Amino acid sequence: MYFIGIDLGGTKIAAGLVDENGRIVAKRSIPTRRERKDAEIVEDMAALAVDIIKNSGLSVADVKSVGIGAPGTPNNDAGTIVYANNLNFFNTPIRSVMQKYIDLPVLIENDANCAALAESVAGAAKGLKHSVTITLGTGVGTGVVINGKVYSGFNYSAAEMGHMVIISGGEECTCGRRGCWEAYASATALISQTKAAAAGNPGSLINSLVNGDLSAVDARTAFDAAKQGDEIGNRVVEQYIKYIAEGLINVINIFAPEMVVIGGGVSGEGEYLLKPLRELVYRDIYFKGEPKTRIMPAQMGNEAGIVGAAMLGKDA
Amino acid sequence: MYFIGIDLGGTKIAAGLVDENGRIVAKRSIPTRRERKDAEIVEDMAALAVDIIKNSGLSVADVKSVGIGAPGTPNNDAGTIVYANNLNFFNTPIRSVMQKYIDLPVLIENDANCAALAESVAGAAKGLKHSVTITLGTGVGTGVVINGKVYSGFNYSAAEMGHMVIISGGEECTCGRRGCWEAYASATALISQTKAAAAGNPGSLINSLVNGDLSAVDARTAFDAAKQGDEIGNRVVEQYIKYIAEGLINVINIFAPEMVVIGGGVSGEGEYLLKPLRELVYRDIYFKGEPKTRIMPAQMGNEAGIVGAAMLGKDA
Repeated sequence: MYFIGIDLGGTKIAAGLVDENGRIVAKRSIPTRRERKDAEIVEDMAALAVDIIKNSGLSVADVKSVGIGAPGTPNNDAGTIVYANNLNFFNTPIRSVMQKYIDLPVLIENDANCAALAESVAGAAKGLKHSVTITLGTGVGTGVVINGKVYSGFNYSAAEMGHMVIISGGEECTCGRRGCWEAYASATALISQTKAAAAGNPGSLINSLVNGDLSAVDARTAFDAAKQGDEIGNRVVEQYIKYIAEGLINVINIFAPEMVVIGGGVSGEGEYLLKPLRELVYRDIYFKGEPKTRIMPAQMGNEAGIVGAAMLGKDA
Repeated sequence: MYFIGIDLGGTKIAAGLVDENGRIVAKRSIPTRRERKDAEIVEDMAALAVDIIKNSGLSVADVKSVGIGAPGTPNNDAGTIVYANNLNFFNTPIRSVMQKYIDLPVLIENDANCAALAESVAGAAKGLKHSVTITLGTGVGTGVVINGKVYSGFNYSAAEMGHMVIISGGEECTCGRRGCWEAYASATALISQTKAAAAGNPGSLINSLVNGDLSAVDARTAFDAAKQGDEIGNRVVEQYIKYIAEGLINVINIFAPEMVVIGGGVSGEGEYLLKPLRELVYRDIYFKGEPKTRIMPAQMGNEAGIVGAAMLGKDA
């Protein structure tokens, strides 16, 4: 039995045929062209699903379901996307439109929740009951898997830990609130923190690494400077890791999962990030006993969206 | 079929015989005498359970299980209490000792989680799938019910939202961390906030209400002053409600439960507390759509501990 997973992004729509172990056996993608009307995008998603089944020499009867991971807030009861970041989606009917083209159950989830399910089924948290996946990217995306299933609350808006305040009244967040974890721990926040430190310390290696052009600072710059012994770079990285830790300790005190999986571009720093992070977390979590929540890097990379979306249908 | 629920507190041990709808049909309590050895307390708990069955004219065959709600961290796999606040419990075997006296399944949970289960089975959140119960007392106790069952994580340490940092680096918390929600939103914190405001404003009604003796300030004093139009009292209450809201918004962004139930002494303020609290929460939660999480007062009062502990056995 196979599953279709569709990762609807602002740039491309990626679809895959996935087996029950979360392995992609075929995939295809097309540009989203997000300025289009929502209905056109949905029809393209349906066509992509039909196509990928046909090109794999399979029929609809070999596929159990079509899962869709979307940015923003889906409503799986209604079969709609209530709204999606960066897309012209507003209460867009997905299920009913797609089912005109492909007669299969259609399941819809938030993309961060799909990433968490992918890690749980086939990635770092494979086989564990409870895990939380945190994606440190443009924002802080978070997804929660409880008893092997995505937890999304009664109205599909749960697991928004990026919008958990860690510094009440602090930095402005894109959500309108102040002091959210995302405003401190996202790659976007790290870039701002790096720029501010470099601007205040012209002698820092950070400035040389970007040839004095702070607009060229990215989420790696502070880490690169720190690794070369730059004091300012070190200070930025240390403070950034403290911000990640503050939210992560909250997450562990709240969910006590077997594992927290850290993904997103910043997680590419590997143990350079994770080792000091674990030290801070294990020092300050509430439960001092054993066993402790493990903190591990994500394994699914760019395939997380397709695999997680597909696996929505596994126990559905 | 009946269930025994035992609420193990620092002052008394309360036990009840509870029916499957969460109604207490008989109850008894004895002093904890917490300075005693843990084994003596456990033997008393077993004797109390045996007693209550006998006095109700029932036999052990009429009872499905014995549930125990304890402060601190239980380990239901091991059948122990890892440690309990204010008691000399340290990896105390509960199940094995109790089963020498009463041949029934013995289930153990944290007391805040039991309160949440009680509200879910028979209280404010009756019949709902997902609810979170927050007890504003000496600390901020929190319990989470997902799909009708207590969620306590893989090592029984979950749902400690009282120890979620809302102001990184802020007020010292009893847990050793700084800036936890509990350090701002507990009754204890409210009392400190009230005393500090009164000390800095000798003309405030707060001072008159306690005849100038700030050691007599309790969790009602600021509310009483505010209700009589005192500006300082008002300011304390407004700020305190903002602190509750900050954590509550996090809780809703994280769990998106059908309902958050507010209990503990402070919740006795009723709508005077809940109305402004809801306004702040609905303004700042991440999901602006419908339906929204409801925020309601607890209904189980002092019976929450017994009923929740008993109901641990319902679907076990």
